[in-house]
Amino acid sequence: MKTAIITIGDEILIGQIVDTNTAWMAQKLTNAGFEVTEKISIGDNAQQIKDTISDVFTRVDVILTTGGLGPTKDDITKKTLCEYYGTDLIFDDSVLENIRNVFPGSSTLNPLTHDQAYVPRDCTVIQNRVGTAPITWFDRNDKVLVSMPGVPYEMRYNMENEIIPRLQAKYSAEAYVNKVFIVGGYTESALAIHLTDWENELPEGFGLAYLPSPGMMKLRLYVKGEKRREELEHETEKLRRLLGTAIYAEKDIPFEKILSEHLLRKGLTVGTAESCTGGNIAHLITSISGSSQYFKGGIVSYSNEAKCNILQVSSSNIERDGAVSSSVVTEMAQGAQKVLNVDCAMAVSGIAGPDGGTDEKPVGTVWIATAVGDRVISRKYQMGKFREMNIIRASNTAILQLLEMLRE
Amino acid sequence: MKTAIITIGDEILIGQIVDTNTAWMAQKLTNAGFEVTEKISIGDNAQQIKDTISDVFTRVDVILTTGGLGPTKDDITKKTLCEYYGTDLIFDDSVLENIRNVFPGSSTLNPLTHDQAYVPRDCTVIQNRVGTAPITWFDRNDKVLVSMPGVPYEMRYNMENEIIPRLQAKYSAEAYVNKVFIVGGYTESALAIHLTDWENELPEGFGLAYLPSPGMMKLRLYVKGEKRREELEHETEKLRRLLGTAIYAEKDIPFEKILSEHLLRKGLTVGTAESCTGGNIAHLITSISGSSQYFKGGIVSYSNEAKCNILQVSSSNIERDGAVSSSVVTEMAQGAQKVLNVDCAMAVSGIAGPDGGTDEKPVGTVWIATAVGDRVISRKYQMGKFREMNIIRASNTAILQLLEMLRE
Repeated sequence: MKTAIITIGDEILIGQIVDTNTAWMAQKLTNAGFEVTEKISIGDNAQQIKDTISDVFTRVDVILTTGGLGPTKDDITKKTLCEYYGTDLIFDDSVLENIRNVFPGSSTLNPLTHDQAYVPRDCTVIQNRVGTAPITWFDRNDKVLVSMPGVPYEMRYNMENEIIPRLQAKYSAEAYVNKVFIVGGYTESALAIHLTDWENELPEGFGLAYLPSPGMMKLRLYVKGEKRREELEHETEKLRRLLGTAIYAEKDIPFEKILSEHLLRKGLTVGTAESCTGGNIAHLITSISGSSQYFKGGIVSYSNEAKCNILQVSSSNIERDGAVSSSVVTEMAQGAQKVLNVDCAMAVSGIAGPDGGTDEKPVGTVWIATAVGDRVISRKYQMGKFREMNIIRASNTAILQLLEMLRE
Repeated sequence: MKTAIITIGDEILIGQIVDTNTAWMAQKLTNAGFEVTEKISIGDNAQQIKDTISDVFTRVDVILTTGGLGPTKDDITKKTLCEYYGTDLIFDDSVLENIRNVFPGSSTLNPLTHDQAYVPRDCTVIQNRVGTAPITWFDRNDKVLVSMPGVPYEMRYNMENEIIPRLQAKYSAEAYVNKVFIVGGYTESALAIHLTDWENELPEGFGLAYLPSPGMMKLRLYVKGEKRREELEHETEKLRRLLGTAIYAEKDIPFEKILSEHLLRKGLTVGTAESCTGGNIAHLITSISGSSQYFKGGIVSYSNEAKCNILQVSSSNIERDGAVSSSVVTEMAQGAQKVLNVDCAMAVSGIAGPDGGTDEKPVGTVWIATAVGDRVISRKYQMGKFREMNIIRASNTAILQLLEMLRE
């Protein structure tokens, strides 16, 4: 079932918000058997909204829109959908009651919030249990348009609990079956060359996508139709033989989730000692729910003073080798093990940039030490020129380096 | 000058990557005076690529495409642009030389990387100084299409250094002038009501956008044309009188950047003690380059043991009040001040979810303490139901609470 996502809002076109919604939506829709063939962002402009809907409906059966449902006057989606479908807004008491449930504390609603209870006549209204903007579902000539708010957690809650179940009930779509592999230790082209023969001999209808991320590659092997799952399993088996231990996981999960699974299985605890990554590794680890079972804490030792006082790094090592050195990250990792009382530790010290680089240690130089019990490995990496990317790559690389030790 | 951004890649339509590129591109283009009227994502499908370009060129003068330029066989943009423009691929020695410069270490290039040096005949080739895929610029009948790689830092480097300067040289576009305000302490509708009269009386051509973020609101006031800057300043003055100290900044910067400016101005240092935010506050602070001038470090005390051992929280307080309590966050903040030897501290302890909630302290309960010298403030907040959102909101709220103290 061909599906399009249309995001509505001037703020998207002027780049004031990053769209994290549509990737999430596309993934859920794909898994549910709906083929997202285009994603479009347009402004809060009535004519453009109507023209785009008309045009896109010539190519797809389902349109999901997000945005433009706020209480302020720059939000015009609801009114514009009335124009498109030739209807008008009516007040809906059940929506007002839902709004009161969402904000149980406030006895009086301000007028703008109150007006959220106006909905288009002649559509199905879906109550938004986590926000004030109702969701509207239009079904004309077997073409469905669903308009939902763009607030990420409202969109997610309603997609999962209301919209996808209703779409599945209406259409019986043939889902893709697919398999994702997290692969470490290859660049994109090295991996492609290694897999050329196998890829060329994939059966009709199979696709393979290469998705590079900092420090790893994701491979997605896919084919349409549940009936082809056995072939998929067969090709997966061949890929396993080709890649061996370079495959870190056979599902689409981040490194921190793979680490989580290893630590839980082995009953080990972990801690962090971060300098240039500034807490990002701890943040990644604790973004996994249940991480308190194995993560006991971390030290962000951004200053030399913090490295010495809290992690017991010797100031003579810092003076002799500099803070970005094997001796210092090794002491940081061991210090973290001791002060946090953990089995494993990751320690990172580097020059994230844009300042602080020297000829000997240019921006992007990063030392990473990982410790499991008494064993410590420290390695030097050369990341890139960009602060943001250096922080992300160093974080992923530290987790990968610890994973290597845990998998041995 | 009407401009469209087209991102090409199946991985976007199946939601395997979040598009952070186009927000950045749209912002740069808007500032440079190019009006982005639509953003479209399509698959690695030759017919769809050609149809979309034809269609979009009926509405805009400039198309920027990203993606589909990798070395693997799922990437077809270059070939498809040849079909669209009726030309073919030729080998370009200057591109090969550039590729060798980008990868100075490797004496032999693998064949896939070597083939990146094929470019369409009859277009302007722009060397990509930070990657292997060349940028191609087509100009036909005064309509320009630029194809660039989707790798974020390659795209950013080339947009800033090559593409935007060339677009500005070709077209003389009238830029928007605008003003962004970071506003704390209002919900979206409360703010809209407070500003109704002023907003209704804005001069012709002015626009106001409300951009809610966790813990704050961004307002963007804009109008087209440098000649209207004085009017913009006049309306800004009115807004300042209406909002007073609720305006935290008059430019589009995150809270952590506002904090940075306050700390630098006052010559104060800061540290963090984080439980449920898991290092995210330290990560936000250190994402600002130059943060080592005021940020000395942080403790992620995810376990009670870490709270007691490193931050010197008294275990009797944890037993009596629980880890999510005023007494514990107060001791965490004071402990961070002491162990990190800093002037100011933020401490957060809460229940991020999805597990760990109780009737008395449901998921989303967060205590935040902020300390400046001897003064400590601790407050309880009720965030939402979602882990990811709770971490982001608690992080922003902690920074906001410290900012409040620093602004007094």
